[in-house]
Amino acid sequence: MNESKLLPGLLVNPAELEKLFDRLWPICRSITGDGLRESLHILSEVQPMRMHEIPSGSRVFDWEVPKEWNIREAWIKGPDGKMVCDFRENNLHVVNYSSPIKARLPLSALKAHLHSIPSMPEAIPYLTTYYKENWGFCLRDNVKQSLPEGEYEVFIDTELKAGSMSYGEIFLPGRLQDEILFSTYVCHPSMANNELSGPLAAIFLAREIAAIPERKYSYRFVFLPETIGAIALLHRLGTHFKEHLKAGYVLTCCGDRGDITYKHSKRGDSLADRAALNLLEKGQLAHRGIPFAVGGSDERQYCSPGFNLPVGSIMRTPYQQFAEYHTSADNKDFISFDQLQETIRVCLGICQILELNESYQNSVAFCEPQLGKRGLYPSSVDPKFDRENLHRLLHFLAFADGNTDVISIANHRNDCALQYADIVKQCREAGLI
Amino acid sequence: MNESKLLPGLLVNPAELEKLFDRLWPICRSITGDGLRESLHILSEVQPMRMHEIPSGSRVFDWEVPKEWNIREAWIKGPDGKMVCDFRENNLHVVNYSSPIKARLPLSALKAHLHSIPSMPEAIPYLTTYYKENWGFCLRDNVKQSLPEGEYEVFIDTELKAGSMSYGEIFLPGRLQDEILFSTYVCHPSMANNELSGPLAAIFLAREIAAIPERKYSYRFVFLPETIGAIALLHRLGTHFKEHLKAGYVLTCCGDRGDITYKHSKRGDSLADRAALNLLEKGQLAHRGIPFAVGGSDERQYCSPGFNLPVGSIMRTPYQQFAEYHTSADNKDFISFDQLQETIRVCLGICQILELNESYQNSVAFCEPQLGKRGLYPSSVDPKFDRENLHRLLHFLAFADGNTDVISIANHRNDCALQYADIVKQCREAGLI
Amino acid sequence: MNESKLLPGLLVNPAELEKLFDRLWPICRSITGDGLRESLHILSEVQPMRMHEIPSGSRVFDWEVPKEWNIREAWIKGPDGKMVCDFRENNLHVVNYSSPIKARLPLSALKAHLHSIPSMPEAIPYLTTYYKENWGFCLRDNVKQSLPEGEYEVFIDTELKAGSMSYGEIFLPGRLQDEILFSTYVCHPSMANNELSGPLAAIFLAREIAAIPERKYSYRFVFLPETIGAIALLHRLGTHFKEHLKAGYVLTCCGDRGDITYKHSKRGDSLADRAALNLLEKGQLAHRGIPFAVGGSDERQYCSPGFNLPVGSIMRTPYQQFAEYHTSADNKDFISFDQLQETIRVCLGICQILELNESYQNSVAFCEPQLGKRGLYPSSVDPKFDRENLHRLLHFLAFADGNTDVISIANHRNDCALQYADIVKQCREAGLI
Repeated sequence: MNESKLLPGLLVNPAELEKLFDRLWPICRSITGDGLRESLHILSEVQPMRMHEIPSGSRVFDWEVPKEWNIREAWIKGPDGKMVCDFRENNLHVVNYSSPIKARLPLSALKAHLHSIPSMPEAIPYLTTYYKENWGFCLRDNVKQSLPEGEYEVFIDTELKAGSMSYGEIFLPGRLQDEILFSTYVCHPSMANNELSGPLAAIFLAREIAAIPERKYSYRFVFLPETIGAIALLHRLGTHFKEHLKAGYVLTCCGDRGDITYKHSKRGDSLADRAALNLLEKGQLAHRGIPFAVGGSDERQYCSPGFNLPVGSIMRTPYQQFAEYHTSADNKDFISFDQLQETIRVCLGICQILELNESYQNSVAFCEPQLGKRGLYPSSVDPKFDRENLHRLLHFLAFADGNTDVISIANHRNDCALQYADIVKQCREAGLI
Repeated sequence: MNESKLLPGLLVNPAELEKLFDRLWPICRSITGDGLRESLHILSEVQPMRMHEIPSGSRVFDWEVPKEWNIREAWIKGPDGKMVCDFRENNLHVVNYSSPIKARLPLSALKAHLHSIPSMPEAIPYLTTYYKENWGFCLRDNVKQSLPEGEYEVFIDTELKAGSMSYGEIFLPGRLQDEILFSTYVCHPSMANNELSGPLAAIFLAREIAAIPERKYSYRFVFLPETIGAIALLHRLGTHFKEHLKAGYVLTCCGDRGDITYKHSKRGDSLADRAALNLLEKGQLAHRGIPFAVGGSDERQYCSPGFNLPVGSIMRTPYQQFAEYHTSADNKDFISFDQLQETIRVCLGICQILELNESYQNSVAFCEPQLGKRGLYPSSVDPKFDRENLHRLLHFLAFADGNTDVISIANHRNDCALQYADIVKQCREAGLI
Repeated sequence: MNESKLLPGLLVNPAELEKLFDRLWPICRSITGDGLRESLHILSEVQPMRMHEIPSGSRVFDWEVPKEWNIREAWIKGPDGKMVCDFRENNLHVVNYSSPIKARLPLSALKAHLHSIPSMPEAIPYLTTYYKENWGFCLRDNVKQSLPEGEYEVFIDTELKAGSMSYGEIFLPGRLQDEILFSTYVCHPSMANNELSGPLAAIFLAREIAAIPERKYSYRFVFLPETIGAIALLHRLGTHFKEHLKAGYVLTCCGDRGDITYKHSKRGDSLADRAALNLLEKGQLAHRGIPFAVGGSDERQYCSPGFNLPVGSIMRTPYQQFAEYHTSADNKDFISFDQLQETIRVCLGICQILELNESYQNSVAFCEPQLGKRGLYPSSVDPKFDRENLHRLLHFLAFADGNTDVISIANHRNDCALQYADIVKQCREAGLI
C-alpha cells in the first residue's frame, strides 16, 4: 500500500468496513431473490437507497429478466446416510440457480453434477446456471475424490418463480444534471474480493460524496445483479446517460492486497480515464493501467456500441488474475480492510478531480497578470517562498485559455490535478478566472 | 522461414515454381523486345493474360516509350582471335540496350566500354543504357584484369527500331469495381531474386485468387517493364485507380532466404499498409517494416504526388541490401522455392484480410446480445470451452459499431484479422451483423 | 562544442564578440535608466537600432511602466569608517531598484537589508526590487559573516522619477510582411551568460541577417527590459504579431560551455519549433529539447493565452541549472566566445531553414519527371555519382505535393532541411517546381 499525500481523508475506517462485511458475508446472494434483497437493505443502512424491482419476464433489450430464484436447503447424503455436502455449511456448495431436485442416484450418475477444482483440492468452486435450467453441487476436490461407490441422496429445495429482480440506487443531486456513476454488483454469494469489496467501497463512497457540501456533479451509485442488472439499468436510463453521464466506474475486486488497476473505458481517453489516470500517474500511486477488454464486468454493457459511455473500472487485482477468484478461498483472509479503505480514498480523489476540472479562462490573457498587485507574487526573500507553487500558478494562467481543462494543464507539467485546487480558488478570488 | 498457422494453404508447390523458373531463366529480357514478349507468354500459361503493346514514341506523362530493342549476338574476341566474352554464355555480358557495333580497337579504347566489379571478381554486373545510346560489355573483374594488350574485335548485333513496349495484365473481376493491384516487373534478364521472383510469385498468386469462388474485390496483376511500364499503366488507368484502387503491392526480391520486408506506401497508413502489417505483426511472422523511400521500384510511380495511391511493396531482402543484387551471383542458388512459396502465402493471407475487412455493425448494439439463446455462448463446463475465442467474439461485438473495421478491431486485441473470419461468419448467420 | 558542417559561416568572430562584451560589461543596467540607454547605444554601433522610450506610468495590459531608476553611488561603511561594500567595486552590491537612503544603524538592523549566499561564500548575489519600494545590499557571505557589531553607515544615492523605459528594435524588411522575431533582454547588470550573451548574439545575428541579399521574411530584433519590456512590445505589436509572426526565439544564457537547449513554444509544434529541431536533431548537433514551462523569460508573455505566438527559446545551459546564475560568478570566465559564436551560427542556420521552407509543388506530379532529359539524372558509372543526393532529389519530388513543407520532407528522410537548399534551386531552375 502506498498512500499519496494528495488523497483525501475519509469518514469511514477499516473497522466499520469489517463490521458491515461480517453482516453481509453469510447471505446467499444471486441475481434475484431474497438474499439479494436482504443485502441491499443492509447496505442501505449506511446511505439510503431506492429499491427497484423488475418483474420476471420483462424484456430489456436483447434479454429477459429471469424467474426469481430462492433457496432453502440443499445437500447430498452418502451411501451411509451421512452428509457429504451441505448448503448450510457454505452457500457455494450449490450451483447458483439450481432447479429443485430430490432423488437417489448412484455415484456414477451423480458425478455429472459435481464440480471441483483438482488443482485447488481444498477450495469449493463458484458456479452458476442462470439462463439454462440445471442443478449441481460444488465441493472440495479431495472430498469428491474420496466419495465411495454407492447410492446417494440429493436434495435441492429451491424455487424458480415469476417474481422480480432487485437492484438498489442512490442518487445524490449536484448543481448540474450531468452525472458521475459508480456501478457495482451484489449478486455473488459468500466471496470477499469478488464481490463484497465493490459494494462495500461503493456504499461508503456514497456516504463520503453525500457529505460534500456543494457538488457540481450529480452522483449515482448502483448496486446491481451483474449483466442483467446493468442491462435493466441501461434500459431505464441509457438515453439519459448518453446525454448526461460524464464519467463512470465499475467497482470490483478492490479489497485485495494488490495495487490499484485501472481499466480504460472503450473510448480509451474519456474523462473517466483522464481523471483516474491523472490521479494514479501524477499522484504517484502504485498502479497499472490496462486497456478496455471484454473479459470483465458491467463495463461491457456500458461500453456496448449503442452506448459507448465513458465508463472504466477500478480494481486491485483483476478477476481471473488471482487463483482464489470464484472459489471459497476468496474469503475474509484474502482481503484487507486497509486496502479497501484506500480504494475508497482513490475513488474520492478521482471525484475531487472531476469536481475541480473545468476549462477555465484567464481573464487577463494578454501577457501575464501582474500577480504582485494582487498579493499573489511571493517575495523570493521570504523563507516560506515556494518557487514550485509559484510556477504552478503561472503555468495554470499560461494554459487557462478556456479550451484546456485542469487535467490537461496538470498533465503538461506532470502534476496531479489536485495540486491545482488552491490555485483555482486563489485565481477565482482574485478575479483572474 | 517461419510459417504462421494462420496462413492459407496453396495450390502451387515449390517444384512447380522451379519448373517455370527454369524456363524463364535463360531468356534475355529488357524493357522492350522479343525476350520480354516470350516471357509474358510463358507466364500466361499459368493464368491467362491480356497483352498490351505501346508503340515506340508514345508520350506517357513526362516520358516517351523508347525504341524497341532486340539482340541476336554480342561478343569480344581477343588479339589471338579467341572469345573473351560472349552474350550466348550469359546475357548479362552485354550492357542492356546497347547500340549495335562492329569494330576493332585497342584494349585502351575498349576499356571505357568494359564494366566489372573489383570487389566481386567472379561476378558479372548488370548494367543498362535505356535512355542514352551507348554500348558496352560487362565481365568478371578477374577476366578483365587479365586481358593482354592488343587489338580486340567487338561485335554487338542489336537493333533499335520503332516497335512497341509490351506488358501483361490479368484482371479478375469481383463483386465490387474497387480493386486490389499486384505489380511486378519482367524486364530483367537472367537474374533470380531481382527479378524472376516477383513475376513468379505474381502469376501463381493470380491463379490462387482466380480460384476464390466469391471475391469482394476485383484483382489486377500487371507484369511490366520497370518505370516506363508503370508510367504507361498509370497513363491508361491512373484516373480509374484514384477512385477504385483500395490497396496495391509491388512484388520484388521475394525469393531469397531473408525474412519478409514490408515497405509502406507513401501515405504510411493506407489500407495496403494496415492489412499487410496486421498479418505480419499480429500473425507473428518474422518480418520488418520500412518506411516509404524513393530507393525502390514502381511504388515511386504509384505514390507520385499526383496519384499517391495506397501501394506498398512486399519483399524479402530489399534491393541493394544483398551483395548479389544486379550481378550474375543473383542466380538460382541464391533463392529458395520454399521461400518463394511462403511469399505467395503471405500475399494470399493479405488478400484474405482485405476480403474480410469491413466496418460491420452489431445489430443489437444496446448492451451485449444474449449469446446463449443463439447457441453462441459455450458452457464453461464443456471440455472444449475456449475462453479466448469467446472473448474474441465479445470483443468483435463490442467494437462493431459500423465505423471500425476488422483490422482495427483485431489490432486493438493484438489479434490477426484472420482470427475473426469464423466469428464474422457466425455473427452473420446469427443475424448479429 | 560540435560544429555541424551544415551550419553557415559568419562575418563575426570571437574576438569581435569579446571586444563588445568588454565595453558592455561594467555598465549598471536595469529595466529603466541611463545604463540601459547607454548599453543600447553601444549595441546599435553594430547594427542600427530604433530606440523606444515608454513614459513611466503608461498602462500596458495588466501592468504599468515603473518609475525610471538611476543610481550614482551606494556603499556601507563599518563601525571603523572603512568601506564594507561599494557599488563602484561591483554593481551587483546594491539591490537593483533600491530606493535612496542615508542612515546610520546597528548591525542587527542592517542585517535585514543584507543578502548573501551561504553556500557560495565568495559570490555576490543579484537581487532586484522593481515593483516594491525597498533597499538592500548584496555581498559575499564570508564578508557578511565577518562583520563586527557596531554602528554602520549606509548610503544609496538613487533616484526613482517619472521618466521612461527604453528598448531597442531592429527591423529588417523582407519580401513578405510575415516576420521572424529574435527577442533578448538587456536589463541585467554585470553578468555574462545571463545576460550579456543574449544581446551579443542578437546584435551580431542581426548584422548577419542584414547581409542576406534577398530575404523572404522580415526580421525583427528586440532588446528589452525583461517582462515589462516584452509586455510593452506586445502592447504595441501584439495584433500585428498574431497575423504576421511566423516564428520567434528568445535568446538567453547562450554563451556558456553547455550544449544548445531548445525550449519549445507553448504550442509545441509551431514553425519555430519545427525549424529549430530539424536543424538540431537532423543536423546532429548536441542539444536537448525541453517543453514549454513558465520558469523562463519573455516567452511567458509571447505565449500567454491571448497571444499564444510561435515563440520558443534558444539557450545553452538554462537559467537556474547553473550555480553561477544570478551571481557575480556568472562572469567573463564562465562564458566562451567560441560558444557564443556557435550559438549565432545555429540561429543563422535556423533562419536559413525558415527562408528555404515552403510547400513546393512538383509540376510534373503524375509519375516521376524524367530527370535524364533535364540533365538531373547522374550516370551511375560517373565516379562522382552520389546516390544519396539522387535519392534526396527523388524524395523531394515524391513528397512535393504542395501541402508538405521542406522541413516535413526532410524529417521524413531524417535529413536536415539545409540539405535540400541546392535541390530546391535545381528543381526551380529546371521548372520542376
